[in-house]
Amino acid sequence: MKAEIITSLQNQRVKRLVQLQQKSAVRRESGLFVAEGLREVQHCVEGGFEIVTLYFCRAMLSDEVLDTLFQSCAGVDCYEVTPEVYEKMAYRGTTEGVMAEVRARYLILEDLKLGESPLVVVLESVEKPGNLGAVLRSADAAGVDAVLVCDALTDLYNPNLIRASLGAAFTVPVVACSSGDAIAYLKEHNVQILTAQLQDSNLYYDTDMRRGTALVMGTESTGLTDVWRQAADAHIRIPMLGRLDSLNVSVSAAILLFEAVRQRESKI
Amino acid sequence: MKAEIITSLQNQRVKRLVQLQQKSAVRRESGLFVAEGLREVQHCVEGGFEIVTLYFCRAMLSDEVLDTLFQSCAGVDCYEVTPEVYEKMAYRGTTEGVMAEVRARYLILEDLKLGESPLVVVLESVEKPGNLGAVLRSADAAGVDAVLVCDALTDLYNPNLIRASLGAAFTVPVVACSSGDAIAYLKEHNVQILTAQLQDSNLYYDTDMRRGTALVMGTESTGLTDVWRQAADAHIRIPMLGRLDSLNVSVSAAILLFEAVRQRESKI
Repeated sequence: MKAEIITSLQNQRVKRLVQLQQKSAVRRESGLFVAEGLREVQHCVEGGFEIVTLYFCRAMLSDEVLDTLFQSCAGVDCYEVTPEVYEKMAYRGTTEGVMAEVRARYLILEDLKLGESPLVVVLESVEKPGNLGAVLRSADAAGVDAVLVCDALTDLYNPNLIRASLGAAFTVPVVACSSGDAIAYLKEHNVQILTAQLQDSNLYYDTDMRRGTALVMGTESTGLTDVWRQAADAHIRIPMLGRLDSLNVSVSAAILLFEAVRQRESKI
Repeated sequence: MKAEIITSLQNQRVKRLVQLQQKSAVRRESGLFVAEGLREVQHCVEGGFEIVTLYFCRAMLSDEVLDTLFQSCAGVDCYEVTPEVYEKMAYRGTTEGVMAEVRARYLILEDLKLGESPLVVVLESVEKPGNLGAVLRSADAAGVDAVLVCDALTDLYNPNLIRASLGAAFTVPVVACSSGDAIAYLKEHNVQILTAQLQDSNLYYDTDMRRGTALVMGTESTGLTDVWRQAADAHIRIPMLGRLDSLNVSVSAAILLFEAVRQRESKI
């Protein structure tokens, strides 16, 4: 495959891509974001995202990888860049050799297709993009139907989020919405609401999660707001058996999600 | 409490502390490491570590916090530093206001005190200090008896490890040893060896973990070596139900550990 070669650090495309990486306002206004890394770009394609422009650095890639990439991005505008240009564009360093401008997709609750006995993760007011990305990775592994990000304080296409998700940002259906809308949606779809909180709660593994279940988590610092506590069908907690008083939110999410998986799938 | 005030960035104590933060060779030769943050220093004290020297920046701390700190570090050499000096010494930024030089402790297998039906985590060849620290945090929460770090490629007192552990590096008994010694120790103490691996394995939640159990994990990139696979009583896997093919090692550890907790503690 032949592609125009960009050699100048001053190229307008290069500058735009750097802006897209760095500024959430530029992402919002353009409706685009950057996926960096071969695996991430492929997860975008598989997840049905539209690749708008593809950039690659031939020196960092094998012919085989390049062939695979071109096949999965057939028909996409494609530019080769020099290692110097790639380094300027890259957020994650120069190990990958592939990045793409991708059309952002902002799902709404009505877009979701819930299965029977759906499994949903709800995050309230999560602040750190890296934490949200790590939760998406756990959520992908557990095969969730959706992740609802309520009253989000971060942009769903933040590069730290994408990086921490290892591509799960593109494989898991994520909806940003208000807590009120999320609660109404869950109740309407007969999904029980289990809030993770220390006070007034039952051990998570003594709680039935076989029916449709939403696992709701707040920030590590302040926990959940009252609107969620009051909407809950039950409050659950993970026992803290050591000296520390908290777990990382992506770890908590994984423990709770895989307990739901176990209850639904275990043969014993 | 009165303490000598250090105002010079060129002070020898300041320089030494920076070296201790940055260089594992300096930590190894001196037998000291740095704990940064109020919570971390307190976990050191509670964990029985010897605080050699305490540094604090009065401008960053309330009188109440300072009182608590001095009480738990009574008799320790203590220096007040200016905000500029603190900033130079700090690895984690300037939000904490407290750091300490602490005597390192290198436990060996014979130091461990296993309870009845012990729960042990084994990590083979873990490379990233942050990953090891995060595993320690999960291990603390699950109340493990010990973490064995086999053929370690990182220093147990690396600042990134300590930071990611949120202090669990001081609350969980950690032993660095060879895989051969670890296997001999576990077999001698009648602890079953369950290796996390994808091939030729059973679902973790269909595996009995109520007896003494060691959960063994390799690196994300290369997995476990044959010596562990062959020593295993059973091979277990976490089902990957989404599109990605792996979980963060601290997330995997937490899922497996809390399944052991559930099997041992659940009322239903």
